[in-house]
Amino acid sequence: MVICLMASLLLVGSVSAKDSEIEKDTFSVIHSRKSVKSFTGASVSIENLDKIIRAGMAAPTAVNKQPWSFVVVTERKQLDALAAGLSNARGINKAGAVIIVCAEPEKANLHSKDFAIIDASLASENILLATEAMGLGGHWIASYPYEDKMKHVRTVLGIPTDVIPLNVILVGVPTGEDKPKDKYQKDKIHWGKW
Amino acid sequence: MVICLMASLLLVGSVSAKDSEIEKDTFSVIHSRKSVKSFTGASVSIENLDKIIRAGMAAPTAVNKQPWSFVVVTERKQLDALAAGLSNARGINKAGAVIIVCAEPEKANLHSKDFAIIDASLASENILLATEAMGLGGHWIASYPYEDKMKHVRTVLGIPTDVIPLNVILVGVPTGEDKPKDKYQKDKIHWGKW
Repeated sequence: MVICLMASLLLVGSVSAKDSEIEKDTFSVIHSRKSVKSFTGASVSIENLDKIIRAGMAAPTAVNKQPWSFVVVTERKQLDALAAGLSNARGINKAGAVIIVCAEPEKANLHSKDFAIIDASLASENILLATEAMGLGGHWIASYPYEDKMKHVRTVLGIPTDVIPLNVILVGVPTGEDKPKDKYQKDKIHWGKW
Repeated sequence: MVICLMASLLLVGSVSAKDSEIEKDTFSVIHSRKSVKSFTGASVSIENLDKIIRAGMAAPTAVNKQPWSFVVVTERKQLDALAAGLSNARGINKAGAVIIVCAEPEKANLHSKDFAIIDASLASENILLATEAMGLGGHWIASYPYEDKMKHVRTVLGIPTDVIPLNVILVGVPTGEDKPKDKYQKDKIHWGKW
């Protein structure tokens, strides 16, 4: 009976380990995602960053145009250069990396800036959720629609002028200080009609 | 030994059942999400729709302004009225419900239409992922930026003129015909610099 119990626990143990490897469930990740401002300063691996951006590229786009590109920065010197022109980038000094999600109107449905921005936004939300799912922290720092911030990001990273650097997403190991907010408001849902 | 194996299987079985209840893991949901055009015609419960929209409201917004509202339609007559002005709403005849995610510039950071559209887009992506996580199918039908489609949606649902009906998201039980696309493109990632 003891052996039996041990065998059972081993099996259960292995299932749990596998589940943990394939990451957390969707609803708990959606509701535990928060804008992380406090990072430990630890780095994020290239492999993890690639996995996060791969999730970004799984987002839908209008007429499947995928009008986006992604710039990834991990070097401290370059992160500091970005920070110099982004007054809103609190936490970047301890982030392990940043991902700049770029919208490309020329590649979008109807060459529309509107569609490019929406499509790049959906990719960005996937990136934030993937980051949370891996136990990392993310934070969308706005570049668009601020002309000065976009110009700065373009200059530091060599981004062409017809490409829109939508945001600078901080990615890093969270200290655990930042907590999610419950933003559910029943009266924001209209059933049947406005 | 037979009893031992049975006990092990029972324990493993119960773990799996629990995992299934708390929904699927984030990465598999992100990568299995697809735009569903083929629905069975089955209805979607109010409880599930509320859970899906709750996930939408967990998305981040600029300066936490949450400049959004959601209109939910489940009545066939109203769905048909919406379909009449949406040439792009393939599949709506068999969808169980639609969710219209509305952007409210007046409530957004800096009263900016840009931020309102981005924030409502992030909520919409959460809605699409939550739908997939529940084993349902979703499909973003564009309303914005088409003036004629927005006008039609506003008229059918009584949405104020200063509110932007961003999309009409079909929600329903998928037949299983629609499959996800692998959209990963390595050359869309720029490491270090554009």
